[in-house]
Amino acid sequence: MIVELVSVGTEILLGNIVNTNAAYLSEKCALLGLSVYYQQVVGDNEDRLMESFKLAYNRSDIIILTGGLGPTQDDITKEVVAKVCGLSLLEDEETKERIKNMLAGGSYDVNDIPENNWKQAMVPEGAIVVKNNNGTAPGLILEVENKRVILMPGPPNEMIPMFEESIFDYLNSINPGVLFSKMVKICGVGESKAEMDTLDLINNQTNPTIATYAKTGEVHFRITAKANSVEEAKEFVRPVVKVLQTRFKDNVYTTDENETLEAVVVKMLKKKGLTLVTAESCTGGLLAGRIVNVSGASEVFPQGFVTYSNKAKRKELDVDKATLKKYGAVSKEVAKEMAKGGIFATDADACLAVTGVAGPGTEDDKPVGLVYIGCYLDGKVTVKEYHFKGERQKVREQAVTKALDLLRRCLLEMDK
Amino acid sequence: MIVELVSVGTEILLGNIVNTNAAYLSEKCALLGLSVYYQQVVGDNEDRLMESFKLAYNRSDIIILTGGLGPTQDDITKEVVAKVCGLSLLEDEETKERIKNMLAGGSYDVNDIPENNWKQAMVPEGAIVVKNNNGTAPGLILEVENKRVILMPGPPNEMIPMFEESIFDYLNSINPGVLFSKMVKICGVGESKAEMDTLDLINNQTNPTIATYAKTGEVHFRITAKANSVEEAKEFVRPVVKVLQTRFKDNVYTTDENETLEAVVVKMLKKKGLTLVTAESCTGGLLAGRIVNVSGASEVFPQGFVTYSNKAKRKELDVDKATLKKYGAVSKEVAKEMAKGGIFATDADACLAVTGVAGPGTEDDKPVGLVYIGCYLDGKVTVKEYHFKGERQKVREQAVTKALDLLRRCLLEMDK
Repeated sequence: MIVELVSVGTEILLGNIVNTNAAYLSEKCALLGLSVYYQQVVGDNEDRLMESFKLAYNRSDIIILTGGLGPTQDDITKEVVAKVCGLSLLEDEETKERIKNMLAGGSYDVNDIPENNWKQAMVPEGAIVVKNNNGTAPGLILEVENKRVILMPGPPNEMIPMFEESIFDYLNSINPGVLFSKMVKICGVGESKAEMDTLDLINNQTNPTIATYAKTGEVHFRITAKANSVEEAKEFVRPVVKVLQTRFKDNVYTTDENETLEAVVVKMLKKKGLTLVTAESCTGGLLAGRIVNVSGASEVFPQGFVTYSNKAKRKELDVDKATLKKYGAVSKEVAKEMAKGGIFATDADACLAVTGVAGPGTEDDKPVGLVYIGCYLDGKVTVKEYHFKGERQKVREQAVTKALDLLRRCLLEMDK
Repeated sequence: MIVELVSVGTEILLGNIVNTNAAYLSEKCALLGLSVYYQQVVGDNEDRLMESFKLAYNRSDIIILTGGLGPTQDDITKEVVAKVCGLSLLEDEETKERIKNMLAGGSYDVNDIPENNWKQAMVPEGAIVVKNNNGTAPGLILEVENKRVILMPGPPNEMIPMFEESIFDYLNSINPGVLFSKMVKICGVGESKAEMDTLDLINNQTNPTIATYAKTGEVHFRITAKANSVEEAKEFVRPVVKVLQTRFKDNVYTTDENETLEAVVVKMLKKKGLTLVTAESCTGGLLAGRIVNVSGASEVFPQGFVTYSNKAKRKELDVDKATLKKYGAVSKEVAKEMAKGGIFATDADACLAVTGVAGPGTEDDKPVGLVYIGCYLDGKVTVKEYHFKGERQKVREQAVTKALDLLRRCLLEMDK
């Protein structure tokens, strides 16, 4: 089954927004075993939209259009699709009622709802109407001449929930079977090495399939199988996950798609009943900020220090003046004292300390990208030296990921 | 002049990467006064790429292709374009030399350079070869039958510098004139209100043009004019900038495209010789992290506190136990004490304090999105109450922007 995505919106052609919808839908189609051969973007212009849609309709089996379903005269996706497919538009009572309830509850008195909103209640004859729980424009599915045409609203906060609640299951029913996927997330192995080490698996993939995603400091593998039952699909996925776990060992931090590195670290701390504090220089609060991303982090994370100046390092973390003078703020020795100092100042069980040169300028002749991370845990301090590539922001992001990973490894070490 | 973008790469069709190249190039074309009518994405497949390129070649004046210029057999963009245009490929000596120097200096001994790299030195006859300072694949410009075809490598860290160093000037020379643009960045006015208040300007735009970009908590207007000289272009832009400044007053924080809100705040503090500390609860270090984004922030930002627990608020910021008990951690009163406490603990001149409910759960019956921001400056504390919409991460990002903006407004107030 060939899928084609048509994103409709002049704002994409002006570069005002990035077309994340296309990436999202492409990834989901890959997961469903559907091949996306083309993506198109076209503006809110009748002739050009008609041309693009006709092209897609002629060469693909499933055409997914997003955008252009709003209440204004500019929004013409539904009208153009209906015209090309030779369908008339009829008012859908249920949709009208839903729009009325939605708008009356919010911005308008029921009698003041602008006339143009009722345009959104018009649907092509025979269409399957898909409920939109986050906006007024309904989704639509048309089945015409062995082709399937799916229309969804453009805003991601409407499109994504609609896809997850309804469209995913619809697409999966076309090519029946149960999908099951696991994500193997690794940290501590470079992207190209991770790819090299899995080339044999990737080259031989059929069912399950393996997709690789490179993130800052991390590599994720998604293993997806399609089968007649969840149990069968799991049977396909399990051995591949096992192979990856055997190959990457402790570098694997989760096999749960929705679990982040920081969530894993928070979970491990919770399980051991330990608390953590942070002592940051070059990352300037980003490490603490990432830990606090985890809902419920308060159980293990009471506080953090951002000690950007040397004075603050001395005052808050009791870093020795002589150490700063002798080795400089970006040094193994200072990272160690910062990690110890965080513990001393708070009585926490663990402390992550980060000091480095984020750039653009060097510091005390130390190169941009040089970062020391100290981890105090279980009575000892582990300090690691890193050399990150990239500009200021990139160096800091990598440092945050490596700090979380260092703590994870130290926590694993406790159990050995 | 109609521009069409063709992004080549199976990784985009699989959703492994987001097509940020298309957004970047679209924005630049808009700036140059060139209309992008279509964007296409197609995989590394000869038949389909040929079909997509032919379509673009027939309906557009300028076709910009990105991706598929690598050294492997998969990379076929150049070969397909040459075939469609009826051009043969010839070896370009200068490019070969550049590739040799680049690879020999890095990964390979000069005699070990894999044969397939020389494929990148082959260029269509008559092509303008564009230097790539960040990779081996050169850019190419073809001028055929009144059409212009531009090929650039896919990785953004090669494509963007190449565009800025060479392609931008080339495109600008097609439709000669000097471009000049100013960015008016505002904070504190909602997106729809900002649009409403500028509808008359946007509807009447020709030269200069006005483009609106919505960011988290901010709205940016880009005003661009094209003229025979920089002076003339500036003359076109100046009155529009002035109108926007008059309409949005203190909400305008900069007219410099490259200046961020945090950079403006750091600059204002530097100018006044003031230092700032942060005291964060729900934002958990993100505010400090954003200030440290600014290179040279160390002059004004010695340190920050992440006081996530009530105990840390009491210990580090001397927040009163009774205040926490009576009003709860998310309250006007606690924000005020945090801001004062940050000053008391450090002798800084200013302190920004943030406490709120980021979600997903409510806190002491207080709703998700309720945030109090306190700003200590010049002997007094200003506390504001905010109600942000969205999930945990979004609430925190908005809080950080509003905190920076509050400090900016307090600093402005000092001069009045």
